[in-house]
Amino acid sequence: MSEATKPIRLTDEQRLDWLRLIRSQNVGPRTFRALVNHFGGAQAALEALPGLARRGGGSGAPQVYSRDEGLREIRATQKLGARFVAIGEADYPRRLQMIDDAPPLITVRGHAAVLTMPLLAIVGSRNASAAGAKITQRLVHGLAEAGFAIVSGLARGIDAAAHRASLEAGTVAVLAGGQDRIYPPEHIDLLDAILPAGVALTEMPLGWEPRARDFPRRNRLISGLALGVIIVEAAKRSGSLITARLALEQGREVFAVPGSPLDPRAEGTNSLIKQGATPVTEAADIIAVLQPIMGLEMPAREPEREEEMAGALPVEPAPDERSRIVGLLSPTPVSIDDLIRLSQSSPRVVRMVLLELDIAGRLERHGGGLVSLL
Amino acid sequence: MSEATKPIRLTDEQRLDWLRLIRSQNVGPRTFRALVNHFGGAQAALEALPGLARRGGGSGAPQVYSRDEGLREIRATQKLGARFVAIGEADYPRRLQMIDDAPPLITVRGHAAVLTMPLLAIVGSRNASAAGAKITQRLVHGLAEAGFAIVSGLARGIDAAAHRASLEAGTVAVLAGGQDRIYPPEHIDLLDAILPAGVALTEMPLGWEPRARDFPRRNRLISGLALGVIIVEAAKRSGSLITARLALEQGREVFAVPGSPLDPRAEGTNSLIKQGATPVTEAADIIAVLQPIMGLEMPAREPEREEEMAGALPVEPAPDERSRIVGLLSPTPVSIDDLIRLSQSSPRVVRMVLLELDIAGRLERHGGGLVSLL
Repeated sequence: MSEATKPIRLTDEQRLDWLRLIRSQNVGPRTFRALVNHFGGAQAALEALPGLARRGGGSGAPQVYSRDEGLREIRATQKLGARFVAIGEADYPRRLQMIDDAPPLITVRGHAAVLTMPLLAIVGSRNASAAGAKITQRLVHGLAEAGFAIVSGLARGIDAAAHRASLEAGTVAVLAGGQDRIYPPEHIDLLDAILPAGVALTEMPLGWEPRARDFPRRNRLISGLALGVIIVEAAKRSGSLITARLALEQGREVFAVPGSPLDPRAEGTNSLIKQGATPVTEAADIIAVLQPIMGLEMPAREPEREEEMAGALPVEPAPDERSRIVGLLSPTPVSIDDLIRLSQSSPRVVRMVLLELDIAGRLERHGGGLVSLL
Repeated sequence: MSEATKPIRLTDEQRLDWLRLIRSQNVGPRTFRALVNHFGGAQAALEALPGLARRGGGSGAPQVYSRDEGLREIRATQKLGARFVAIGEADYPRRLQMIDDAPPLITVRGHAAVLTMPLLAIVGSRNASAAGAKITQRLVHGLAEAGFAIVSGLARGIDAAAHRASLEAGTVAVLAGGQDRIYPPEHIDLLDAILPAGVALTEMPLGWEPRARDFPRRNRLISGLALGVIIVEAAKRSGSLITARLALEQGREVFAVPGSPLDPRAEGTNSLIKQGATPVTEAADIIAVLQPIMGLEMPAREPEREEEMAGALPVEPAPDERSRIVGLLSPTPVSIDDLIRLSQSSPRVVRMVLLELDIAGRLERHGGGLVSLL
């Protein structure tokens, strides 16, 4: 393991700062990363938030998650038997940390060792057919024999079939809400059955009721954890196809189970196959594709800077620099590299101005280093 | 149209010679071509047959189809409403003449104009499911709207569904036996329904009862006539998969309809898709692939030489030449080009020795100019 990938280990105080920062207003995973890298740590970033928002043109001070709120969440999470794992720590899932918008903190409950196994995601229709459930079961058994554990979303239908078939081999349920807000509620028993040899994992705060838009967001973790995603039955415009798209963006393999053109539950999977997904009728089809990948070392992610002495030098843009940089932005995403080139400002200054806009709630960070005005 | 592709038109006498030659012992389509090209015409080749067989080490004189037999077959074929079309003639299907082992003579019955339409082959299980028949019907209707006519093998199941759906748009039934030996017999009515806007086509003699081995042989004509082959439902080791393989060898597109992994009738088609066949759920999938190909001029096939003055100069191998060439042959196929190089004999001499072996029943001609000893 190279120096760059040596795991970090947060102190309790640092973990609290990380939690406060990621739970603060206008701070998502990409902004979190930019802040910590810019200011050298979460504590310094937290202190900088109000000033950033003001200079970025925010209408008021950003809501910063308080120490008390953070401590309460950590205690309640522990009480539930779950714990926080930070990106870069030894227990953070290796593949997940490679995705562009990896959550800086996740909570994990259950048998965490399953996260070190090679993982494959299986997703599909909520109103699965009996045949779909049977195919899922067959695939899972074949994959379990080959040493894979399974990731899915605890939904009805294919997800549930995938979890049930992998209770012994190991299974990861990725939640769209908090660890105490299991959806759908009738799968609380299934989750209990999962935990002895598997885990429940989420980036959402305790008490968070999942809303519709949290599911696509969650789906990026399902694909991000896995070497590949297998879609078993999916209608034309379904959440499973979103997961497939995210998987492609993350460089994961996409597998799809073919079905009859007369079966509406196969429209999505057949369409994926037409677009180049690997058709799968048995576990061997998947293993054949993954075998050569599994041996490869994962590229190292540059860790967040969280060093005691990493305090950032203050950067103050020249009077017209800020407005010149803002003037280069629009609702059309543009790359930060292009901004630096076009503005002729230093990278540090450009990044600072972007952080200001970000914390003021005026910037959106996309994948691939793209930003746009909101 | 270039000089080389200008259609030929056989005289009645030449047609009779062609028929006699292709019906003679040990003369298949490849040997026919080699003979006509070597001797300049079918008549000269017919005269040369006994001498070739003798020099090639045949155990006796080859059975040459007599003038009387030929005349009888031509008359009976005409009586049935069918007629002979020779390769290179205007009515011979353009794409079929490009395949390596195109039959020198075919008989065509019905509405021959259908053979000038863009053709697509549809084949599949004899014990088709209702779903398979319905999908076939859907595809055919979509393809008919786009101006395609359909080729198939008149078998039970998918073949019959494909023909029935294309009765109006035009359909080509390729027979494994003679025009008067329809298989299966219960499809005689279907064939009658095909003929007003379609054709029955075969290379086999009148009165020929199709044997098991005639079906794979016939399948090369199904794929050879078409721009591509669509396989709808096929079990693991089925005739449809042979057609798919032949189609690939002929450079035709292969399309397959996906199905559930639990459906044994989809094992063959799913397996084709895994191997790279284009998955198809609707006609548009096929049209999208073929549109760019259809505009292209087909490469010209060098026509058989059938010229009044094209008599070949006699070629007599030197005493040790024949045995040297035979010594280079074995049951492992070798290319004629390599034989010419290795033997250091002239191409004409090598080809002559091969013809001798061929007519003596000792040589097999494979695709791609390969030959082997029997």
